[in-house]
Amino acid sequence: MAAEIVNPRSDSTSDAESDTGSDEAPFDPAFALHRGGKMAIQATVPVRDKDDLSLAYTPGVAKVCSAIAERPELVHDYTWKSQVVAVVTDGTAVLGLGDIGPEASLPVMEGKAILFKQFGGVDAVPIALGTTDTDEIVETVVRMAPSFGGVNLEDISAPRCFEIERRLQERLDIPVFHDDQHGTAIVTLAALRNAAQLTGRTLGQLRAVISGAGAAGVAIAKILIEAGIGDVAVCDRKGVVSTDRGDLTDVKREVAGFTNKAGLSGSLESALDGADVFIGVSGGTVPEEAVAKMAKDALIFAMANPTPEIHPDVAHKYAAVVATGRSDYPNQINNVLAFPGIFAGALQVRASRISEGMKLAAAEALAAVVADELGADRVIPSPFDERVAPAVTAAVAAAARAEGVARR
Amino acid sequence: MAAEIVNPRSDSTSDAESDTGSDEAPFDPAFALHRGGKMAIQATVPVRDKDDLSLAYTPGVAKVCSAIAERPELVHDYTWKSQVVAVVTDGTAVLGLGDIGPEASLPVMEGKAILFKQFGGVDAVPIALGTTDTDEIVETVVRMAPSFGGVNLEDISAPRCFEIERRLQERLDIPVFHDDQHGTAIVTLAALRNAAQLTGRTLGQLRAVISGAGAAGVAIAKILIEAGIGDVAVCDRKGVVSTDRGDLTDVKREVAGFTNKAGLSGSLESALDGADVFIGVSGGTVPEEAVAKMAKDALIFAMANPTPEIHPDVAHKYAAVVATGRSDYPNQINNVLAFPGIFAGALQVRASRISEGMKLAAAEALAAVVADELGADRVIPSPFDERVAPAVTAAVAAAARAEGVARR
Repeated sequence: MAAEIVNPRSDSTSDAESDTGSDEAPFDPAFALHRGGKMAIQATVPVRDKDDLSLAYTPGVAKVCSAIAERPELVHDYTWKSQVVAVVTDGTAVLGLGDIGPEASLPVMEGKAILFKQFGGVDAVPIALGTTDTDEIVETVVRMAPSFGGVNLEDISAPRCFEIERRLQERLDIPVFHDDQHGTAIVTLAALRNAAQLTGRTLGQLRAVISGAGAAGVAIAKILIEAGIGDVAVCDRKGVVSTDRGDLTDVKREVAGFTNKAGLSGSLESALDGADVFIGVSGGTVPEEAVAKMAKDALIFAMANPTPEIHPDVAHKYAAVVATGRSDYPNQINNVLAFPGIFAGALQVRASRISEGMKLAAAEALAAVVADELGADRVIPSPFDERVAPAVTAAVAAAARAEGVARR
Repeated sequence: MAAEIVNPRSDSTSDAESDTGSDEAPFDPAFALHRGGKMAIQATVPVRDKDDLSLAYTPGVAKVCSAIAERPELVHDYTWKSQVVAVVTDGTAVLGLGDIGPEASLPVMEGKAILFKQFGGVDAVPIALGTTDTDEIVETVVRMAPSFGGVNLEDISAPRCFEIERRLQERLDIPVFHDDQHGTAIVTLAALRNAAQLTGRTLGQLRAVISGAGAAGVAIAKILIEAGIGDVAVCDRKGVVSTDRGDLTDVKREVAGFTNKAGLSGSLESALDGADVFIGVSGGTVPEEAVAKMAKDALIFAMANPTPEIHPDVAHKYAAVVATGRSDYPNQINNVLAFPGIFAGALQVRASRISEGMKLAAAEALAAVVADELGADRVIPSPFDERVAPAVTAAVAAAARAEGVARR
């Protein structure tokens, strides 16, 4: 993938410094690294002389344009459309920082873009929008879509993210994927599959409790049910999201409908009593007494960053497997394990969308990567395991073909 | 600039072929070159291990996001915003092909993007829009603007292109530049300056006739007047655009108001009688009898592609200097001489717009490059003259500072 790494910005950066007066910057490695941004455009064809120019630009390019005008599907062969994903945000739910606006979200979107390239060989372009209006976001992305092979929605706050994704999927014939929902859900499912196997159980034998009813919590609940989990209850700040509650948003009412077979209600703590699995995507802290009441061989995924809902040291007292969102503990639930391969696979076969089957196939392929090395500290591979992206890519492409959403 | 040129797409392209059944493609060098597109994203920072990831992405990136949220101007230092231009089109006026739609226009937009990189060191991203509605185009670009340092409007048909550019310039605080208008006008002025000097005249001593009242013709008329041309008449299919005509669009009525001091009316041919300069941006053909009636030492810029309004062999019978839009004749009027340096200069000083003074400065700098080598076959430098982009960049940056539109 991105073999050679150079920073053409090194000049501009030094003078930038003096002008902005941000003197602390050079002394912080993160600021130093971000000077001038983290990405660039690269020409993949030569433009050295008149002959190059007459092929890559006028007059040669006219033939290619005419061919595409005549046979629209050729746009996939003769432009970068099928190689490039728009990373779209409105800057309303950036990391733990919340609504910091489009410009301030750009460093995250650039980071996402270079991870797409580094891990999936997929080109990606940050598009941070100056609007938070659902209709305007949908219309804007629909109008930009002819230029892109896919849309990765990023850091858009709930509940707008659900409607924006649904409406874009209805309007567009290219994959639209909200990574904060599905990327997290896919990696969580992969890790949970392996954790269940390691402790001699099937997903069907597990009862899970999810702390957090936002983008990630809702998507995790959905994929666990599709994957055949025994039961799952989703909790928000007020406790279990259950049909008997009168204070639910549309999305939470929907969640209450397809989760919580056991008919639990009340607090997260009470729901954890006897539960096999805890999945935290909420922040906040779970008291140790509640953790102590979980079933034997509990599986604890406390994914809040930087502070897990249950500290790994506490979790290990009661759990057979502990996973977090942090890179400094084992079993990091990291979206980068999923999204590069998912888009690479979808683009490879020109999928019109990313189906549920493709997501499940991605999770299975991801889980399978650690098969032989499976252990309590190794239910999910490292983000730098070079087997991951190719395995996910192949599984997603195959699933797209099997489900009839592939176009080549 | 783009030192090393590789094509990471070579694999995907071979299978693309069989699937699209476009068997002729491999035998046409233009199609072969365009396989998989002409551009890619490149990471400019390393992402090799956990430490890299924790700086370029979470948790390190959060500090940078917070700093920008606090001091918005830092977005220019710590993201690629100030390095990247959106090349925006609706695909309605692509080359000589006309309204071929957004997808079919992408090869031209990618070509433009790699020229930005190759000649100006500027990153550029093709944004081909799926709408031709003026309001929708304006709203869409305004919403995308937080991600970009500038907007290059491309191949949008007249008269919409005039209103779209004007409204975007009013709404945005970054440069918005319709290259089909101003790029052509700047290069034409540079060549005309040198041609006048070569033949011992000032611009003030010249009377010019422009064939074509579209984007290029109108912009050329404006810049020639700003530069102090003696007189200029603009002609459309019906002849001279003059105030006594009742059939003029708003834009042409405006043109009639500030051109044609001589009060000419009637045909292009009659307007050429005694004229010093012919500028063709229309297509069509000018009969030799009309060319023969031009003044001594005529300057003929027949820029229609691929067929000049006056064939160079004919033009040379009557003219002291002949220029065309073709790369296979001397004196090619090629926009690539202007737009890379213009955006590079504007971005370098974070100009809020591209002022008339910056355009005139670009034309003067461009003309000056050939100073010593000035000759009838060399009134404008070659697109591959490496002195061009740096000279234009420096002149545009200096003019931006002088005019108070620079922000650093």
